Amino acid sequence: MYSHGMSTQERLIESTRELLWERGYVGTSPKAILERAGAGQGSMYHHFKGKPDLALTAIRRTAEELRAAAEGALSGPGTPYERIEAYLRRERDALRGCPIGRLTMDPDVVASEELRAPVDETIDWLREQLAGIVEEGKEQGQFAQSLDAEEIAATILATVQGGYVLARAAGSPAAFDTGVRGLLSLLRPPP
Amino acid sequence: MYSHGMSTQERLIESTRELLWERGYVGTSPKAILERAGAGQGSMYHHFKGKPDLALTAIRRTAEELRAAAEGALSGPGTPYERIEAYLRRERDALRGCPIGRLTMDPDVVASEELRAPVDETIDWLREQLAGIVEEGKEQGQFAQSLDAEEIAATILATVQGGYVLARAAGSPAAFDTGVRGLLSLLRPPP
Repeated sequence: MYSHGMSTQERLIESTRELLWERGYVGTSPKAILERAGAGQGSMYHHFKGKPDLALTAIRRTAEELRAAAEGALSGPGTPYERIEAYLRRERDALRGCPIGRLTMDPDVVASEELRAPVDETIDWLREQLAGIVEEGKEQGQFAQSLDAEEIAATILATVQGGYVLARAAGSPAAFDTGVRGLLSLLRPPP
Repeated sequence: MYSHGMSTQERLIESTRELLWERGYVGTSPKAILERAGAGQGSMYHHFKGKPDLALTAIRRTAEELRAAAEGALSGPGTPYERIEAYLRRERDALRGCPIGRLTMDPDVVASEELRAPVDETIDWLREQLAGIVEEGKEQGQFAQSLDAEEIAATILATVQGGYVLARAAGSPAAFDTGVRGLLSLLRPPP
């Protein structure tokens, strides 16, 4: 449960964020949200138009946090390769998966233009950041000229998102790390 | 709906396979299975112990099909690189995602040793096949000796699984292909 200082609206948003991460949109009932938030029956409709509206607010906030965390690793010091490595190796709870990426497996999120938008935008933004860094690496001669920055950026993102799938299938975060090490060995500039 | 020749038991299994792929385990109710199968209320408990038992049968069958399809690409003709390329480029409906991988985002599947087992085994089997091919490629001098076959196999699998996430986020299969092209450009042997 949440601190007494948190408003009902805040508790509803934070509970929804957690439940979306754990159970997805389809698996999250309004009842479960209210229970976790310790909020009364009418409170969801007092603050939000309904479950989709509350979920949209929750997803947007999660997306913002994810961007901030990724930005920290990507805009840090070091060569382009080192910044990509920092992003890939940043502390993650691989068994929990990505709170944004996991929403793509949710039929109701993918079917809704509105709910899918913040997911699409976040992944797009990440891809652009990564493509910019790969491009920099090409200019500095760290990466081969034959590589396409957009494609490599998509491969990096896919390795992260798919790494969660491997980790959750195996029930162990090590499977995530193995995929990341493989990608880093392919990207590593010649000494 | 299904052909008249199909038994109720078969219709239940096939309906469950489709629903698990579309909506996941959490999002699939016994009622929805019965409706899609055109089966009566008692039939699920006549043929199966309940939803988990029916789901396990459905997941096992999907896993077998996936192995057979992957085997076709992986054991085809060509160099190790070409067989990996055939696997990565094999015809897929990227927007539907992987019927096995998507189950890892399902909290009830991951929480159940029994339901997770066929998911884990399938992904493990795929990783071993891919690692064997990478190893072959190293022996033939197609891949650098510095690469670790297990790690590269995990990266290949992660790129596929994460490619589905990118495609579904963007609402376009092209995002899957972009990630695959990036990985292939990193793996491609020098001319």
